[in-house]
Amino acid sequence: MGGAAPIPASQGGSDVINGEMFIGSRSVRGTSGEARAVNPTTGETIEPAYRGATLAELDEACRLAWEAFDPYRSLEPEARAKFLEAIAQNILDIGDELIERAMAESGLPRPRLEGERGRTVGQLRLFAQVVRDGRYLNLRIDPAQPERKPLPRVDLRLRMIPLGPVAVFGASNFPLAFSVAGGDTASALAAGCPVVAKAHPAHPGTSELVGRAIQKAVQDSGLPEGVFSLIFDSGYEIGQALVADPRIKAVGFTGSRRGGLALMKIAQRRDEPIPVYAEMSSINPVILFPGALVERGEQIAQGFVTSLLMGSGQFCTSPGLILAIEGEALDTFIAGAGSALENSNAGTMLTPGIHQAYVEGVERLRSHTQVKPIAHGKAGERYQGVPSLFSTSAEAFLADKALAEEVFGSTSLVVRCRDEAELARVLDSLEGQLTASLHIAEADHDDARKLIPVLERKVGRILVNGFGTGVEVAPAMVHGGPFPSTSDGRSTSVGTLAIDRFLRPVSYQDMPEALLPAELRDSNPLGIDRLVDGKPVPGAA
Amino acid sequence: MGGAAPIPASQGGSDVINGEMFIGSRSVRGTSGEARAVNPTTGETIEPAYRGATLAELDEACRLAWEAFDPYRSLEPEARAKFLEAIAQNILDIGDELIERAMAESGLPRPRLEGERGRTVGQLRLFAQVVRDGRYLNLRIDPAQPERKPLPRVDLRLRMIPLGPVAVFGASNFPLAFSVAGGDTASALAAGCPVVAKAHPAHPGTSELVGRAIQKAVQDSGLPEGVFSLIFDSGYEIGQALVADPRIKAVGFTGSRRGGLALMKIAQRRDEPIPVYAEMSSINPVILFPGALVERGEQIAQGFVTSLLMGSGQFCTSPGLILAIEGEALDTFIAGAGSALENSNAGTMLTPGIHQAYVEGVERLRSHTQVKPIAHGKAGERYQGVPSLFSTSAEAFLADKALAEEVFGSTSLVVRCRDEAELARVLDSLEGQLTASLHIAEADHDDARKLIPVLERKVGRILVNGFGTGVEVAPAMVHGGPFPSTSDGRSTSVGTLAIDRFLRPVSYQDMPEALLPAELRDSNPLGIDRLVDGKPVPGAA
Repeated sequence: MGGAAPIPASQGGSDVINGEMFIGSRSVRGTSGEARAVNPTTGETIEPAYRGATLAELDEACRLAWEAFDPYRSLEPEARAKFLEAIAQNILDIGDELIERAMAESGLPRPRLEGERGRTVGQLRLFAQVVRDGRYLNLRIDPAQPERKPLPRVDLRLRMIPLGPVAVFGASNFPLAFSVAGGDTASALAAGCPVVAKAHPAHPGTSELVGRAIQKAVQDSGLPEGVFSLIFDSGYEIGQALVADPRIKAVGFTGSRRGGLALMKIAQRRDEPIPVYAEMSSINPVILFPGALVERGEQIAQGFVTSLLMGSGQFCTSPGLILAIEGEALDTFIAGAGSALENSNAGTMLTPGIHQAYVEGVERLRSHTQVKPIAHGKAGERYQGVPSLFSTSAEAFLADKALAEEVFGSTSLVVRCRDEAELARVLDSLEGQLTASLHIAEADHDDARKLIPVLERKVGRILVNGFGTGVEVAPAMVHGGPFPSTSDGRSTSVGTLAIDRFLRPVSYQDMPEALLPAELRDSNPLGIDRLVDGKPVPGAA
Repeated sequence: MGGAAPIPASQGGSDVINGEMFIGSRSVRGTSGEARAVNPTTGETIEPAYRGATLAELDEACRLAWEAFDPYRSLEPEARAKFLEAIAQNILDIGDELIERAMAESGLPRPRLEGERGRTVGQLRLFAQVVRDGRYLNLRIDPAQPERKPLPRVDLRLRMIPLGPVAVFGASNFPLAFSVAGGDTASALAAGCPVVAKAHPAHPGTSELVGRAIQKAVQDSGLPEGVFSLIFDSGYEIGQALVADPRIKAVGFTGSRRGGLALMKIAQRRDEPIPVYAEMSSINPVILFPGALVERGEQIAQGFVTSLLMGSGQFCTSPGLILAIEGEALDTFIAGAGSALENSNAGTMLTPGIHQAYVEGVERLRSHTQVKPIAHGKAGERYQGVPSLFSTSAEAFLADKALAEEVFGSTSLVVRCRDEAELARVLDSLEGQLTASLHIAEADHDDARKLIPVLERKVGRILVNGFGTGVEVAPAMVHGGPFPSTSDGRSTSVGTLAIDRFLRPVSYQDMPEALLPAELRDSNPLGIDRLVDGKPVPGAA
């Protein structure tokens, strides 16, 4: 495999891995560059080679997506919901090969990837329910008032429609749940947007398997082929051209700040600027209140280390910053966290590049004159990151912005504050974050209450007595936050509200029943909840 | 008035006009530049002189707005609603001086401005109801499931919170409804955002009167002074610095494409980019179907000319483009519209600058080799625009993008298409628009149905057998559309949905009842509708 000669496209089941991408219904071997995944556990490269798409292939994917847009968005809700469920089933049907391939390409352990597959499948099924439910359409009807003075009132009806084809950039750290069939793809497809996905180069085989599962669902559901394409890029050119393509109307991205900012720039410079939903970087402050530290400092320390080690710290919501007021209770916490960390193993990182960046990030802290090491975990193998905990003073933290930069991996920094006021200043100095956690006892409520408004302005999710690393897929979840944790703090990339990113409102004035979209007709044939004259009117039960 | 010596700040009622702006509770005479409004009906300048704010004054307005943000957003809904109603009442209380001043500064006639005042006041009162109703908060509760396997589910609660202080740029063409207390200000204040408004230089006296009405409502309601400031700018520097100020978190703007694009650039280049809601330009295609033309071509022609002349064509939704298939019925329509137009009077334009741009725009069409004049209205006085109607072929229109540029004023272009396919191509060539109108008879339904998907992708509001110039303030209104009609096609600047522009979601995980915002407590003390486990649960009746 991987030779220059053409290889016949796959005839087999959904578990075939042979270096292909998908341009609509075609399975295509790329021609530009040649890259293989690296198994970060063994350091070995993994066959087959993946080659990047050409600009012509990208153009075809975008053309097909554009052609598919109108027919796909006008599908009955039930058909769109069944399509999402078919994707979920096809992913399950790949079976263990998907888990094994993802393990090899990411270094993540089996239980984690099995859990992530469950999350991915559950997410697709949840969005199928969102589509059936139809409340996301935000239906509003203001009936005509022909007798109104001085002017009669027209008949107005509003619904949300999808923006158009969406570019999705797979993330490295969740090869299933934030990648080819992850939250961005699920919510975009649910909204009625075709998807052109750009595979993450770290897990091309996993991407191919999942891409083929979606392609099969498109075919089995009798949908226009352009509803989904998956392309590989041997560098940055194809991904950048994807964002610049005039037929692409929105972008979903999870990755580095540099990568997200680059895509934002391209999107803003287009003749028609488009929204970019980039989830970028976050250090997720954890605030330990005095009462909680006294009451259960040791227990919080255990929970903190468990959260810090999850996925080798490669979570967007990893607890990278601990804020607390100096004192005996904080010392006890630090001692507890330090000894738990010293007993922890190094964790395999997703890619050699991420490992290298982690080593450099830890070194930056270690060599900082105002930062003291608290503890390190056990040394590991080639691409394993050693968990690390450091401390510094609030004064030093406030004086050096570099100390607030994310170190992607199992490293955290304890900031010792002299008092509440200093702690508030540190919080106020932070950039936008995905999450903040408060650890409090009953006695801390009054102090905590004062900080909540500050946190609301800084983060998308505020947790009490927990850590951000579990991100429930649910209606009330916000996985987003003010810039630069995301490019657009008005959005979430996890939970049912994520669908709103890919919608815009359209109003229909005095349109005859026969021309109205079904969901806005008086008869309400789809039985969806609506707002009539500003008051909720339930659809069919 | 207008001399360099300081003049004591006003002691009188709300009908005082003496060249002041408002930095929180202070009434301030600017010091930079010196500008007076021009009465476009008489050509005379109007006292007093207005001087621009300094950067220090702008800084103070932004600082006060930021300080006011937390207390203002945490007001009880009833208090915020009453504040909006107090603004409405104070505007009415200004009495006739407001109408007379607006007439003098805009050249708009009394009935139009009285109607616009009604709209402005009605809009504030409607947003008071939106605040009381609370549905805009998008409350969602996913209760904990401690027994869930393999992991217990946490308790998650979501609400929308305001973005922060908002910069509002008053528009020239609606000196009341889209200016200092217009839709942007009303929806931002309703959302819980303090407002720093930048007065439009064409109607400074009107702006001062309305600004003082808002300032009085802030004081009478006992709110932090920074909830509202009004600044003047003698050039562009202060307006640009306002958008660049880190304490400003969103921008509302109605005006030219050049102006909107300039603000977008500033907003995107900030350390923290912020959303700009700019409503910019639109030619609002009107599509005349064959059946409708045969059935009532003459009547449509009358309606069209009435719409075209409204406000001297200075409406964002003025019908600037007519599309129809060649033939006898179209000729009849053109003859009817032409003769109605020939009998129409020239209309006073808002400013000498707008008049000049209109004259140039009409001249551009007149001198175009592929454009034929159909009719002109009667010649007018100094700053009056002569209504004009032109025609061209679809081929010529498709060949020259300049023909699709907005001419702000009572000018429209009829594009003769050979057949439906050519008409569809013309539609497809258009940039994003605020509105599109379809004039159809029963016999045209099948043809119209084919165009609706194209229109949905191009515009924010689709009208049948009407014109876009009436913009109802209602829950189902969309006054927005794909770029470049607005900077952000996901939004509307008119109607209750406009509040969504200034909100973002925050999620609270496992937060004790005592620390939760009132609207998310189990007891639901504010009685607001919520989504519990994804199902709607009504609040208090």
